[in-house]
Amino acid sequence: MLPDLSAAMVRDAEARIKPLARRTPVFSSTSLNRAAGVEVHFKCENLQRGGAFKIRGASNLILSIPEEDLRRGVVAFSSGNHAQAVAIAAKHVGAAATIVMPEDAPRGKLEATRNHGANIITYNRHRESREDIAAQILKDTGATLVPPFDHPLIMAGQGTAALELLEVVPHLDAIIAPIGGGGLLAGCAIIAKALEPNIHVFGAEPERANDTYLSMQAGRRVEIPTPDTIADGLRSPQPGALTFPVLQRHVEKVLLVSEEEVRSTVKLLLTRMKLLVEPSGAVAAAAVLHNRLPEDVRSIGVILSGGNLDFEDLITY
Amino acid sequence: MLPDLSAAMVRDAEARIKPLARRTPVFSSTSLNRAAGVEVHFKCENLQRGGAFKIRGASNLILSIPEEDLRRGVVAFSSGNHAQAVAIAAKHVGAAATIVMPEDAPRGKLEATRNHGANIITYNRHRESREDIAAQILKDTGATLVPPFDHPLIMAGQGTAALELLEVVPHLDAIIAPIGGGGLLAGCAIIAKALEPNIHVFGAEPERANDTYLSMQAGRRVEIPTPDTIADGLRSPQPGALTFPVLQRHVEKVLLVSEEEVRSTVKLLLTRMKLLVEPSGAVAAAAVLHNRLPEDVRSIGVILSGGNLDFEDLITY
Repeated sequence: MLPDLSAAMVRDAEARIKPLARRTPVFSSTSLNRAAGVEVHFKCENLQRGGAFKIRGASNLILSIPEEDLRRGVVAFSSGNHAQAVAIAAKHVGAAATIVMPEDAPRGKLEATRNHGANIITYNRHRESREDIAAQILKDTGATLVPPFDHPLIMAGQGTAALELLEVVPHLDAIIAPIGGGGLLAGCAIIAKALEPNIHVFGAEPERANDTYLSMQAGRRVEIPTPDTIADGLRSPQPGALTFPVLQRHVEKVLLVSEEEVRSTVKLLLTRMKLLVEPSGAVAAAAVLHNRLPEDVRSIGVILSGGNLDFEDLITY
Repeated sequence: MLPDLSAAMVRDAEARIKPLARRTPVFSSTSLNRAAGVEVHFKCENLQRGGAFKIRGASNLILSIPEEDLRRGVVAFSSGNHAQAVAIAAKHVGAAATIVMPEDAPRGKLEATRNHGANIITYNRHRESREDIAAQILKDTGATLVPPFDHPLIMAGQGTAALELLEVVPHLDAIIAPIGGGGLLAGCAIIAKALEPNIHVFGAEPERANDTYLSMQAGRRVEIPTPDTIADGLRSPQPGALTFPVLQRHVEKVLLVSEEEVRSTVKLLLTRMKLLVEPSGAVAAAAVLHNRLPEDVRSIGVILSGGNLDFEDLITY
């Protein structure tokens, strides 16, 4: 029986992941504040180790695995950023990592994961089930699964992004993070509400990957067909069984953005902030910069969740 | 009579420019260290206010101008980053700024300068003399000239980049900065040698804009035809009368890089470090990443001097 996610678990995670995760900087831009009509503080997880926030959750879980289990290795399935994170954390503790990745994952993400010493198994996103493949490996090897979002230690690890942000910029009116499976937003919501009970918590999704938006409306987890969005990290077809109740309780609203708004936000963050943010990582910023926030929000912390984008893809924007 | 540049002037500048310049972060990357074969610490002036180190020198000088002179305004000639910096600093002190810019300066730099409220006068780089144009304006208005590099207060201001870098990462074997007119490197060299007398100081230039390289060889300032290089901030045809003696005294070697090496470094810094660095700003990094350093250098501070690059230009790399 897994423990319920709590703010204390996020605080524990902050101490545990120190050897592996960077304390990323928080930036703001006067000109972007003017454009958004709100004071925006960007938490730069694109500058995180492995290029995304994922190292926070992966290392929080992997550093909690007993030594005897670590010897049988770890397994993950991921479109990319979680894969890199698991590979980095596994290498750090000397465990073998097997990663199940879609064959059409961005080339840079595949290569980076391989470079961290992981064993990669690719599959077809439209025809095969990554869960089935991972289950078979777990059965064969006795390895430990490191799920991408649906685990309290993963959620707690990801929440350290908001904890660090609020340590640097306290008393924000709101925070916002993108939603794939919901691990990042669940962790951020729990700790933000503990630190600032009146804070508004928003999530952001591409219109084309609105599974959590629909689930919040329906009051239960809704599954959609594998979403076709430029935000490749947010293609999870439904929120997690463990993440969703947390989101239901703490998230005020899920804001939706178009593919074009994501693209233009990637370009804007690049040319104005000088930061490379991948589409998935720019979705929350896109919602803020395209004025999706309620009027009464005057200051907001935005998680720029990752920066792993191939140059060949960027130049098509 | 202007005072000689000194380390004390750089320390004074550090305090003076605080209201205007950011203390930019210093980043490093394990994978880039491996590629370069040396421990590299990047001082991120691309994340500086105005997108480049230039605000350091411009604000150091402008904040030193007597109130009665400020009322007659300030004038600058610049290919772009110095222009923005002068516009920002002039606005801060409530002085009118007139900027003389080449008509083929990057569009983003022209626009940003205009957005900061400066009056812009364009000229043809190949047919007109920006010095003559600026001289006429000075005569007509009684404004104060803010030169791009050849002034002790400008050099001292730029040197604060190295001062901050060495405060964060002391005991480096070496530092390196790109050379346009030489103001950045002169200021950095003076303070670096004062803090660490045994530090190696290198400069970097594009092969096509090797005026300081040739001047160092000749032992006197050599002028070359207006250089045609992708590094638009380094097109100054010769080092400054005031910067050159400082460079001669403190700079061990000027390292040269090809246009292609600059381009590939811009792409590498973008995809690996998630940082947008303009070609001029990437020249010193290019020299380090393409192994131009002497073998005995084990750790180096690299000034990434600016990040103002139009998306339309970036995608042609």
